[in-house]
Amino acid sequence: MADRDTGPAAGNGLLDRRFFLKAGAASGAALLSAQACSADRPPWMRVPGAPMSESGAPSEHEAHLQRMAIGSQPGTTGAGASRTPLELLDGIITPSRLHFERHHSGIPAIDPDEHRLVIHGLVERPLSFGLEALSRYQTISRIQFLECSGNSGASLSAEPLQRSCSQIHGLVSASEWGGVPLSVLLQETGIKPEGKWIVAAGADAAMMSRSVPLDKVLDDAIVALYQNGERLRPANGYPMRLFLPGWEGNMSVKWLRTIKVVAQPAMTKDETSKYSDLQDNGVAKLFTFPMGVKSVITSPSHGLQMGAAGIYQISGIAWTGAGKIKRVEVSADGGKSWADAALDEHVMSKCLTRFRSAWRWDGGPAVILSRATDEAGNIQPTRDVVLDGRANGAFYHYNGIQAWQVRSNGEVNNVYA
Amino acid sequence: MADRDTGPAAGNGLLDRRFFLKAGAASGAALLSAQACSADRPPWMRVPGAPMSESGAPSEHEAHLQRMAIGSQPGTTGAGASRTPLELLDGIITPSRLHFERHHSGIPAIDPDEHRLVIHGLVERPLSFGLEALSRYQTISRIQFLECSGNSGASLSAEPLQRSCSQIHGLVSASEWGGVPLSVLLQETGIKPEGKWIVAAGADAAMMSRSVPLDKVLDDAIVALYQNGERLRPANGYPMRLFLPGWEGNMSVKWLRTIKVVAQPAMTKDETSKYSDLQDNGVAKLFTFPMGVKSVITSPSHGLQMGAAGIYQISGIAWTGAGKIKRVEVSADGGKSWADAALDEHVMSKCLTRFRSAWRWDGGPAVILSRATDEAGNIQPTRDVVLDGRANGAFYHYNGIQAWQVRSNGEVNNVYA
Repeated sequence: MADRDTGPAAGNGLLDRRFFLKAGAASGAALLSAQACSADRPPWMRVPGAPMSESGAPSEHEAHLQRMAIGSQPGTTGAGASRTPLELLDGIITPSRLHFERHHSGIPAIDPDEHRLVIHGLVERPLSFGLEALSRYQTISRIQFLECSGNSGASLSAEPLQRSCSQIHGLVSASEWGGVPLSVLLQETGIKPEGKWIVAAGADAAMMSRSVPLDKVLDDAIVALYQNGERLRPANGYPMRLFLPGWEGNMSVKWLRTIKVVAQPAMTKDETSKYSDLQDNGVAKLFTFPMGVKSVITSPSHGLQMGAAGIYQISGIAWTGAGKIKRVEVSADGGKSWADAALDEHVMSKCLTRFRSAWRWDGGPAVILSRATDEAGNIQPTRDVVLDGRANGAFYHYNGIQAWQVRSNGEVNNVYA
Repeated sequence: MADRDTGPAAGNGLLDRRFFLKAGAASGAALLSAQACSADRPPWMRVPGAPMSESGAPSEHEAHLQRMAIGSQPGTTGAGASRTPLELLDGIITPSRLHFERHHSGIPAIDPDEHRLVIHGLVERPLSFGLEALSRYQTISRIQFLECSGNSGASLSAEPLQRSCSQIHGLVSASEWGGVPLSVLLQETGIKPEGKWIVAAGADAAMMSRSVPLDKVLDDAIVALYQNGERLRPANGYPMRLFLPGWEGNMSVKWLRTIKVVAQPAMTKDETSKYSDLQDNGVAKLFTFPMGVKSVITSPSHGLQMGAAGIYQISGIAWTGAGKIKRVEVSADGGKSWADAALDEHVMSKCLTRFRSAWRWDGGPAVILSRATDEAGNIQPTRDVVLDGRANGAFYHYNGIQAWQVRSNGEVNNVYA
């Protein structure tokens, strides 16, 4: 256990990320006698199993795997959010049924055959695209994250709220998004020289609308038709949504209905009264588009119970609007020392990246944290740095380091460290 | 249209793969008047939409998106297969509910708290692992394909069967698979020097079992617990399965219950009477492990209806057990000339790769094909080459080129070209 690959990597039990791949790790496995190896077959091996089905459901033993913290704003049925159960998932893909929701007036019941995307404004030829017309174009697909800019706002509370990882950070998910590059459709309409922005609006009753600079649109925006291989789910914009990789979620306008090419941003309600960042000098910052570099430990986290002292996996997700995650560090001593976490094989641009560290928990109190660095050199800030200069109550775009306190009784608490 | 990037790339209308990214492509979009741009709002914008939910369902307009060609063998309820609806999907991820199934005695109703994985045989310390014990180990996740070795067996029919792409080729899917490297668990048990293979057996009533050489096990085998971020679905091995990237699907034993380290393959019923390849000299080939390089055009394909002549996207999937797909070529003139297809951004090892070509269909009869090449230099063979030397009725491991005939009336037929 003393060589470089399997020894300590940082304080309070953090082990080298190659620990599990090199050494026999003491575990909860049970030693067996030869007799036990030929044990009786369990009851489910004595009868034929269930037949095939048209659509496979999760196990009844996993019924708790649901979207969480579903909250409508008072007096509404469909304005609010539900959250991805991050602490119950592994890897990077979010099952579509568990992708977070944020609606401003619920999920519209759109007839796909009647739905049209209209591109107009400062264009040479205003055009209307139905699904059949869009299907003629070459689509692309990429695996990328989507994060609501209000995600993690609970971390601005003066005292740390005892909420689960999903309740605090569950407004982020990752999917394979497939669709037609918006640049291709804009080549069809042409753009007049004075066109510099688009205003995208949805077919929901709130007509959610956002202004997007044309250079982002021409870089990597798509009109998404597919999520994780199948048509979009209604909660995620069926039959089509805008998708802007790495940018704050609400700009990826769902149920996309109109794109108007304009000379200047439209200053819609959704980019002025909402989704702007009031500072303590009274000035509101507008148009904070890319999401900051961020990470969170999903296991252990509040609501999960630690067992006996011993070897554990610390696992979490990291992401950045600036491109790829370059590095994630983990601390088990409240930030005094840090060890590099292992990153899963697929590190993709503007996508979740799964990180993992081996930890020998000694059974005593410990504070665990993660800190992400992206390929542009951005380092995830501390909470204090994120709060500096913010007006009271301004809660968008929080990307501070999350600390979890592991207690001797195995409970995990949210703390500010 | 005459320059290199947008001109013809091969015969009968195949366009350069950059066509859609460079040129205005005539489409089914409708030209609009200024008046039409301010059209009335549709009915679903005039009322609040549906509220958030614990688990998001697909649109009711997509109810046809199901697993297909569900077939049980006569006299059984759970021995058979269901197929992924390839021609209705895009991208590379298969939604877990649509992952193909192949069961030998149905889906066992396993209580995860009672389930154990026992590793025994030529080991130093036989061990039993419950889910809690496995959760202590560092997991990894990768996005990879799984293909039944009986996939595409319908292509061996003397006359081409008029079946859909999924009915012929739908026993292949791709998921993010997460779990514990089996090499780590074998370090815990130790392996005696004479141990060279494992025999993996499932907890289904058929006790499906396969022999796997130890070098594959130590290379990249995992005990999978997660599929596309969530716990495995019962039809795919809940609560745990073996996963052997790139190898024939039945070796990735579902409901994994025992691993016995042995000196030689066990010659189980599932690797002798089944999943072996009889040749016309009377000798059966055993242990054809990696799946061959393969591709199939999913759109257009049989059962999908072409509209008017004009620009279409030819789209499909390619994969190989040997690593990454290097190249996919498409022909629209029955194989006389070929053009390189565009590959989607994520080309991952032992995973599906999505390819796309732009095609100007002139409305006349055409035969379209795709041909994949992998990084090891393997080129997808023609049907004749695959059949050469096979005994009549031997149908495993078919990876020949699929041809679809587009007819003037827009129908698409399965043909041998």
